[in-house]
Amino acid sequence: MSLARVQNFSISLDGFGTGEGQSHDAHFGHAGDRLHQWMFATRWWRGHDDPGGSGGIDNAFAQLFDPGIGAEIMGAGKFGHPGWHEDPQWQGAWGPNPPFHTPVFVLTHHTRPPIEMEGGTTFHFLDASPAEALETAREAAGGKDVRIGGGPTVIRDFLAARLIDHAHIVVVPILLGRGVRLWDGLEGLEKDYQVEATSSPSGVTHVTFTRR
Amino acid sequence: MSLARVQNFSISLDGFGTGEGQSHDAHFGHAGDRLHQWMFATRWWRGHDDPGGSGGIDNAFAQLFDPGIGAEIMGAGKFGHPGWHEDPQWQGAWGPNPPFHTPVFVLTHHTRPPIEMEGGTTFHFLDASPAEALETAREAAGGKDVRIGGGPTVIRDFLAARLIDHAHIVVVPILLGRGVRLWDGLEGLEKDYQVEATSSPSGVTHVTFTRR
Repeated sequence: MSLARVQNFSISLDGFGTGEGQSHDAHFGHAGDRLHQWMFATRWWRGHDDPGGSGGIDNAFAQLFDPGIGAEIMGAGKFGHPGWHEDPQWQGAWGPNPPFHTPVFVLTHHTRPPIEMEGGTTFHFLDASPAEALETAREAAGGKDVRIGGGPTVIRDFLAARLIDHAHIVVVPILLGRGVRLWDGLEGLEKDYQVEATSSPSGVTHVTFTRR
Repeated sequence: MSLARVQNFSISLDGFGTGEGQSHDAHFGHAGDRLHQWMFATRWWRGHDDPGGSGGIDNAFAQLFDPGIGAEIMGAGKFGHPGWHEDPQWQGAWGPNPPFHTPVFVLTHHTRPPIEMEGGTTFHFLDASPAEALETAREAAGGKDVRIGGGPTVIRDFLAARLIDHAHIVVVPILLGRGVRLWDGLEGLEKDYQVEATSSPSGVTHVTFTRR
């Protein structure tokens, strides 16, 4: 069975998945990289060639990002800064070899032909509902799971449509005060999921939603 | 030194300290008692005459409610449902022997003479700023700490004014979707505090802010 999964999605204690003022040079707006320091500190992120890093619960969760994933769905706001669709050369914010290594479906009203990158990532551009996008991504995933990659609006839409089977949300103990909220309009979500919270010595809390 | 402390203040995962639709029969609106089940399950809440209950981290935190406290400050919305000030007989929602056992200062534009209850609780009614109210409560506390008792608006105002020395916030894994938010307008609060998060087997996460 191909699951729809959220992995390593970080929010502030006040619920913002990205800050205000996103731009070419500030992918997460005024949040900077503060939502992801916990991940950058893991052995998984640093990789085999850079020994050290945290090897505990943060690392255990972080490394669930890749295994079993056959495709990703992301929002237009994750693929690029506001206005990227006016730049015909824009190929995403990750350089020539993006860290996805699967087909990636970008939800946008401004579709364009697919872009094949190095390392197995191909960006496809879809103007579709969450359910339609998930069906398309599942076909491309060849029986593997589909990662719902963010940003917050996309994850919220998929949660609201009850399309997510498993969500790993990381609550970072900072207050951003402004930006895009993850939780808006999701009253009662917990009834459909088993929710588990686990704090890490790093200060973040891993919250998992697993469909009942 | 007399500290200003928040103890056992519960919010939903989406940040609401009380639900929508507060009334005489629904002190927390549509939240009901879901924000406080973790506390009702503790040995501390159940008391010596009702053995059983959780004896772990939830209980350890919960019992910090009373010791060392010499006064409480609460908002008008905690003292009673909307419109309580039009009822001259209203004496709060806790019966003849409220669980405070100290002077309690109710912040309200509708002041009235103090009400002396059984068990050491006296309700005083103050139309004052947070800083003024804290000064008054500290005098009444006789060198002990002052508990900032809620609701969310009052705690937010005291946090925004940086009047809180220690805050114990309990994040409950439910999504209320609507109500009164705790965290609004507190961008960067973490810079002035040491923040610690500890998850409990009950599912809640205890987050403490201790002034640096």
